[in-house]
Amino acid sequence: MVYYLAFAVILVTLVLIWRNFIDLKNHNEGNEDMSELAGIIRRGAKTFLKREYRVILPTVLIVAILYSLFREAFSGLTFLFGAALSIAAVEIGMRGGTYANVRTTNAARVTGAMSRTMRIALLGGSLSGYSVPAFGLLGFLIVWLGSGGAHANIVGHGLLLSTPCNAVTMRLTTYSLGCSVVAMFNRVAGGNYTTAADISADIVGKNIHNMPEDDSRMPNSLADFIGDCVNDIAGNISDLLESFVATPTACILISMQVFKDNEAALTAACMLPFILSTGGLLSSIIGVNHIIIKNKKQTVYVNVNGVMQPHEFSRETADPGEELNRATYLSAIIVIAVAFYGCHSVFGKLDGISEVFKIGWVSPAVAAVLGMISSVAVGKITEYYTSMKYKPVKRLAQMATEGDAFVVTYGDAIGSRSVLLPVLVIGISMMISGWLCGTYGIAIAALGMLSFVGTTVSIDAFGPIADNAGGIAESCHLDEKIRGITDQLDAVGNTTAAIGKGNAIGSAAFATVALIMSYIGSYPASNYGNPITIISIIVGGIIGGALIEFFIAILTENTINSAKLMADEGERQLRENPGILEGKEKPDYDRVIKMAADEALHCMLLPSILALISPIVFGFPFGPEIVLGLLGGSTIVAISRAIFSGNSGGAFDNAKKLIETGGLPGYEKGSAAHKAAVVGDTIGDTRKDVVGVALDIFIKTMSTVANTLAPVFYTYRLF
Amino acid sequence: MVYYLAFAVILVTLVLIWRNFIDLKNHNEGNEDMSELAGIIRRGAKTFLKREYRVILPTVLIVAILYSLFREAFSGLTFLFGAALSIAAVEIGMRGGTYANVRTTNAARVTGAMSRTMRIALLGGSLSGYSVPAFGLLGFLIVWLGSGGAHANIVGHGLLLSTPCNAVTMRLTTYSLGCSVVAMFNRVAGGNYTTAADISADIVGKNIHNMPEDDSRMPNSLADFIGDCVNDIAGNISDLLESFVATPTACILISMQVFKDNEAALTAACMLPFILSTGGLLSSIIGVNHIIIKNKKQTVYVNVNGVMQPHEFSRETADPGEELNRATYLSAIIVIAVAFYGCHSVFGKLDGISEVFKIGWVSPAVAAVLGMISSVAVGKITEYYTSMKYKPVKRLAQMATEGDAFVVTYGDAIGSRSVLLPVLVIGISMMISGWLCGTYGIAIAALGMLSFVGTTVSIDAFGPIADNAGGIAESCHLDEKIRGITDQLDAVGNTTAAIGKGNAIGSAAFATVALIMSYIGSYPASNYGNPITIISIIVGGIIGGALIEFFIAILTENTINSAKLMADEGERQLRENPGILEGKEKPDYDRVIKMAADEALHCMLLPSILALISPIVFGFPFGPEIVLGLLGGSTIVAISRAIFSGNSGGAFDNAKKLIETGGLPGYEKGSAAHKAAVVGDTIGDTRKDVVGVALDIFIKTMSTVANTLAPVFYTYRLF
Repeated sequence: MVYYLAFAVILVTLVLIWRNFIDLKNHNEGNEDMSELAGIIRRGAKTFLKREYRVILPTVLIVAILYSLFREAFSGLTFLFGAALSIAAVEIGMRGGTYANVRTTNAARVTGAMSRTMRIALLGGSLSGYSVPAFGLLGFLIVWLGSGGAHANIVGHGLLLSTPCNAVTMRLTTYSLGCSVVAMFNRVAGGNYTTAADISADIVGKNIHNMPEDDSRMPNSLADFIGDCVNDIAGNISDLLESFVATPTACILISMQVFKDNEAALTAACMLPFILSTGGLLSSIIGVNHIIIKNKKQTVYVNVNGVMQPHEFSRETADPGEELNRATYLSAIIVIAVAFYGCHSVFGKLDGISEVFKIGWVSPAVAAVLGMISSVAVGKITEYYTSMKYKPVKRLAQMATEGDAFVVTYGDAIGSRSVLLPVLVIGISMMISGWLCGTYGIAIAALGMLSFVGTTVSIDAFGPIADNAGGIAESCHLDEKIRGITDQLDAVGNTTAAIGKGNAIGSAAFATVALIMSYIGSYPASNYGNPITIISIIVGGIIGGALIEFFIAILTENTINSAKLMADEGERQLRENPGILEGKEKPDYDRVIKMAADEALHCMLLPSILALISPIVFGFPFGPEIVLGLLGGSTIVAISRAIFSGNSGGAFDNAKKLIETGGLPGYEKGSAAHKAAVVGDTIGDTRKDVVGVALDIFIKTMSTVANTLAPVFYTYRLF
Repeated sequence: MVYYLAFAVILVTLVLIWRNFIDLKNHNEGNEDMSELAGIIRRGAKTFLKREYRVILPTVLIVAILYSLFREAFSGLTFLFGAALSIAAVEIGMRGGTYANVRTTNAARVTGAMSRTMRIALLGGSLSGYSVPAFGLLGFLIVWLGSGGAHANIVGHGLLLSTPCNAVTMRLTTYSLGCSVVAMFNRVAGGNYTTAADISADIVGKNIHNMPEDDSRMPNSLADFIGDCVNDIAGNISDLLESFVATPTACILISMQVFKDNEAALTAACMLPFILSTGGLLSSIIGVNHIIIKNKKQTVYVNVNGVMQPHEFSRETADPGEELNRATYLSAIIVIAVAFYGCHSVFGKLDGISEVFKIGWVSPAVAAVLGMISSVAVGKITEYYTSMKYKPVKRLAQMATEGDAFVVTYGDAIGSRSVLLPVLVIGISMMISGWLCGTYGIAIAALGMLSFVGTTVSIDAFGPIADNAGGIAESCHLDEKIRGITDQLDAVGNTTAAIGKGNAIGSAAFATVALIMSYIGSYPASNYGNPITIISIIVGGIIGGALIEFFIAILTENTINSAKLMADEGERQLRENPGILEGKEKPDYDRVIKMAADEALHCMLLPSILALISPIVFGFPFGPEIVLGLLGGSTIVAISRAIFSGNSGGAFDNAKKLIETGGLPGYEKGSAAHKAAVVGDTIGDTRKDVVGVALDIFIKTMSTVANTLAPVFYTYRLF
């Protein structure tokens, strides 16, 4: 029944993809210039993907053969199947992107209406958004049903080697891995493509010739457009497709470990991922197409001088961001309803699940909702740290007035500071999901987070389309007003992209932790205690890593703020007392020295106390296991960060010295290259003398405190 | 017997400290200017430390009272004792630094001889180097013997709360924590002090007024000198003192867990840390004082015109770096001898240790030597990545010719790339030490690494003294030739500092892992399997984190290299064909597009394949546990790094946009602030579009591959 429904929803989605594509193509490309430009972009993207597939083909084939020979006879085929479906989704999504970009520009040009322009961009985005869950689920169903489902205890063998395995899980996992591999290649190649093009365009255009960003006179400009499509559409599609496939795979792997002695529960647990995925797919097409239809031009009859005449009417959108948010909220509500209904129908009347589910059938539904909530929360936090509307970016712009080194160092601090909150949200959701339904809960939370991926990808793909559309408008020297519309869409796209990135990393965290859980259960003799213990340790590890970033952020921020104050003071003395520079008077050293001491002492307490109390803050409520994770995670991150900070700082310092001592012929002291090296050195100072050296004592102090308190945590823990 | 010997060596060291200080003070401070400057630095540093102690006093007292009330009655006292000894060592070391700096300058001025100048700097450094192990060991002995040693099964209770604990270990741990807390404050405050002073001096001096680095006209210059002493001497002393104390503490905690059923072995295992520490202290004073004596001026009688006249003779040093290395090698050889002799004498005739020690009494000695070897290896690797002599820094200097963003991005790549090798060295040493003698082996390896800390700290403290000496020479406008000598010493100091930092982080890694091991054994119900399993997981975790950094490095390097190529090509077209800029001709888009595609495809394979094979590379030799650690570690680091990269990149982007849209009044598009923001944006591009988005698929792919292979790793593991 669920399977039939799933196939039906997939079929509807495929029809919608086809319809939206036809709808999109029926719009005009605009004038000749625009058409030509769009053609180059489309061809460039197409050629690139084709060549990419040719390059990765040998790798994919070799991996497939190895799997068939050594793991399970059919697993090579399912691996290839995953790769193929991933490529199919990318092809459709890219078509949406490269057809929609120029048509969006043209819609702005012809209609001058925000709603109609937005609609075109969203039509293009919907091709990506719909194909991700549709293809992912389709392949998953085929592999699952083709292998016989939950109870087909087929022992798998490789053609050459026979380490026995469960054939069903092996095929599902390799199917997921096939998607993975394509995503990996797309992400890496796409990132390189777009960023190298972008940076080189920036350097050549802005820095050297002072041209606007997307000026078509610049040879690198078109490569930049293509890069946007390749990375933000192709990369994103295959990445999220992989998450959409890996997560139900993890659900099923974990179900088979957790419910192996309860057949009815196993059936139910394996059914839930299909229900959630199907519900998510349905919610996405409803959410997104609702906006597409709403913004379609409608013919209404208007009374003109007593005669009813047809008039094209189109609602004008006040705030395109609001419209897109509405699609997300609508999808979320539908998925929540499906989650509760689905959990009730599969687990509602089941016996013997109370060991695993703390609050009955509601448990997995709550976990799914927790996943969704954390997805939204992570998105909002991301927005706070990256949007122009809030303090961090405003302060960063102010730092720019002090020069390059200040911007970069302060930006580093913002990046580090932004890690802790999302990780806490994810960590707490994981703890609760784990407490509610063990490792299965974590997989279900991941699934909840990903369920309406169709909507988020549609909105995400909206970003590069709007970006391209703006670029085409500038390249073709269209009217300022048109650029105004596309710019506004682009700004909306930036925010949705930030939220989308939060979503991607959050879901990856959940999916990976679920995969680690299933890994732990997947080899003999891997009994590391009960699942809550393992979850505590992993969650503690993630939070410990984020704590290190937070510590780095405080140190960096304090230093750069103190440096700003002291530079202002030194500057003031030199300005107000010209005798100093002439060598006639001595500067007021003591004032600066006192200032340095005041600042240092003032900034010392918080980070130092953080090291002392963080084991306590987590240990008392959650017990010694989470602290164990905390120590491990902070050690792992601190070692990497300390070596990174110390060595990059040292390299910057010596690169500057190399130029100063004449080691780079043609670029002496005072040249532009030397100035750039000085910027590097200044950035490196904070890294090597503040961050790098403080991390090791931070982890040692934390570990020592933990050692004195472990039995106390054990005895007085709250949960 | 060992204890008496230890006290004797400590006594000798204290006498040497006093003698070296007298020797140092007997040298002249030079002319009035120099004396005045030195006085300001000395007073500034002293005042700062005094005020710092006053600020931290409440925190230290509160923590001490809490420990006495709630953990163990005397543990508050031992905590205070640790803090006090740490402060004592800092006071002596700082005296060495602030007296030696100006005397080093003066030695260069008066003698013009490298050897004599170096000797003064090293005299100053030896005060730091000797007090660290001497005070650390002294306090440790007092706490240990005062509590009754290994077999005093005193059950400790807090004055208010009585969660029982072993009083001896609790006192040792809190003693270590007392050192820790002072180190934490010194590091954080010192880092802030020196870097804020340094950056502000750079900004005011170099960027605005084009003055040399240490020009005394600049108000911020002296704060910079003081900062060097505070961070590099005070911070370093207390940090390494803490390691020197935490490591034997961990040894003893672990001994009590591992050998709790074998009394003779327990005695022996607890004795070894004292032997190694005492041997290390002895080796340090021999190694360093040997160089000090060798470079002393000697009075020889020379036949002048038939009359024997006294003549001051001093050996001239060809290479001061070589001299310092010789001190290190000499110390290392002595410690190795002590390690083997010590292990033989305590474990040689012992029964029942073969369960723990895989190759008999030699096992812990080998672990100690492994610790030393990794210390040296990590230092050498650090030197490779940060010294002007090698490729990374040379290439970084070249990148400076392309502008600020290229320098910073490439420097980031160097930092990330430099993480993997040291971590592999540390990880492999840990695996072998763990295999040889379980968790005890890791603690002993850490101890080996730290044993001749007296030598490394002496040489480390040499750095800031030489740095200060050079600054004083410049500030007082001394002769170029004098500056030449101090500059050469400064350059040597930079290299030794880099090696010293490698040593610090390496020893911190070992010490922390040892502390985590002892944490695991320190609460009931914490049975996570056998020690090798736990060691595998932790080592895997550290390596997994480093793998993520390596992945980031490849992505970043590839992108910046591709961007350089493409910028050169775009620039070439615009230069060779002026018609393009005039808008008369179209640029050759296809060439750039093809280039972008070629580069992207070329750079795609290695990082993608890395994700596929790294679980295999570690899983087949070492089994599924290390892969579990690998997955955990890479997930923890990847989540932090992905959020950091995405958000800092997004913030840079929008800070630029904020300025462009007029959000920062007074700084429009094209202003210096805007240019700085563009640099930030360009740096952010690689982070948000290459690194941030690729990390999540990297960890998902790794986890999926691992899931398909876990039972295979289990069956076919080599070790």
